[in-house]
Amino acid sequence: LIRENARSPIGEEGTRESRKQRTHQALLDAALELMGGDESFSSLSLREVTRVAGIVPTAFYRHFRDMEELGLQLVDECFRTLRQMIRAVRAGPLPSEHIIRSSAEILVRHVHQNRRHFQFIARERYGGVAALRHAIRREIRLFVSELATDLSRFPYLNRWSTEDLMMLAQLMVGAMVNTVEDVLSLPPQRPEEEQEIIRVAEKQLRLIALAAPQWRSARST
Amino acid sequence: LIRENARSPIGEEGTRESRKQRTHQALLDAALELMGGDESFSSLSLREVTRVAGIVPTAFYRHFRDMEELGLQLVDECFRTLRQMIRAVRAGPLPSEHIIRSSAEILVRHVHQNRRHFQFIARERYGGVAALRHAIRREIRLFVSELATDLSRFPYLNRWSTEDLMMLAQLMVGAMVNTVEDVLSLPPQRPEEEQEIIRVAEKQLRLIALAAPQWRSARST
Repeated sequence: LIRENARSPIGEEGTRESRKQRTHQALLDAALELMGGDESFSSLSLREVTRVAGIVPTAFYRHFRDMEELGLQLVDECFRTLRQMIRAVRAGPLPSEHIIRSSAEILVRHVHQNRRHFQFIARERYGGVAALRHAIRREIRLFVSELATDLSRFPYLNRWSTEDLMMLAQLMVGAMVNTVEDVLSLPPQRPEEEQEIIRVAEKQLRLIALAAPQWRSARST
Repeated sequence: LIRENARSPIGEEGTRESRKQRTHQALLDAALELMGGDESFSSLSLREVTRVAGIVPTAFYRHFRDMEELGLQLVDECFRTLRQMIRAVRAGPLPSEHIIRSSAEILVRHVHQNRRHFQFIARERYGGVAALRHAIRREIRLFVSELATDLSRFPYLNRWSTEDLMMLAQLMVGAMVNTVEDVLSLPPQRPEEEQEIIRVAEKQLRLIALAAPQWRSARST
């Protein structure tokens, strides 16, 4: 009996911890769900979010200091899944014609699987909450500098100045962001228009790649 | 006396018409002013807009059917001034190194002079009002196809397929949209960072221009 008692709090603690984790996630999911339509983050109320998550409003504060903290964790979550996807692509061989083609397709597939995440990011990138705007910009800048580092390993590009590599990476990330936003703006079930968007994105990346050997970077001159 | 009376209604009519015009513009300006902070169009109320414009709420309907119509006229207004600016640039000689450099600078200067317009467009491009999102996309697509037509007059490019010219124009307009949004995200009074953004934009346009002669468009093969 004493042993049972001694074990029980640990068991309960574990359950309580995982229950807390589940509620935490339910709150994040509830916010995303509520923004699935035309609602923006700034018009979301704490009360609505807790209602959809199935908890009382006051219990919100066990998980987040305020709505802004929830929003920032959503930004984290969106970029975490995107980063995992990109890391998988990056683990492959050096880019080639084939890598460019598959990158655009992989990205668009990822957008479909995480549509609400991307919709949230697209909207809040210039939305009404400054903290979210800044967090999203930081994440995108991080992508740009990671890509610049990757690019520096390529023939021709290994002689470029850091500033020029950043400029190139920014152009490529910008083209990809525009591609994502084009896909998000499509009405559902438009496979042909989507293929067209993918084809344009591939061509843009190939065009940029063609320019690289022609560029005289400050460092190489 | 009779002559006075006969003339008077015309005079009044003219005054009434121009007064109506002024109130119409005051309502558009009031909406832009209210969105100068972090407020989005969808959270704007008719009551607020009329209060700032100095008219009673019911008088709103003499000018616009609803808030959405006001929003659409704001989109028109924003792109009208941008189009006038671009037409002036286009009237100059064919693009060259010098044109590319001045284009980025002219664009950024224009953003400063019309900051609220651009802030409105950046925010509502993925904002909560579908009609505005669609109108903004339409305007940007129009820019892309006008630029594609311009580009088709250039050496090398005159042999490209229409699809490829559109792809190129989209890449250039996309880079410019990203530049505008970078400038808007800067805190005020950061001339050095702004010069950096302009320099990057110029390099991106020059890089894209370098790729053009290397590209084998479907039509030319």
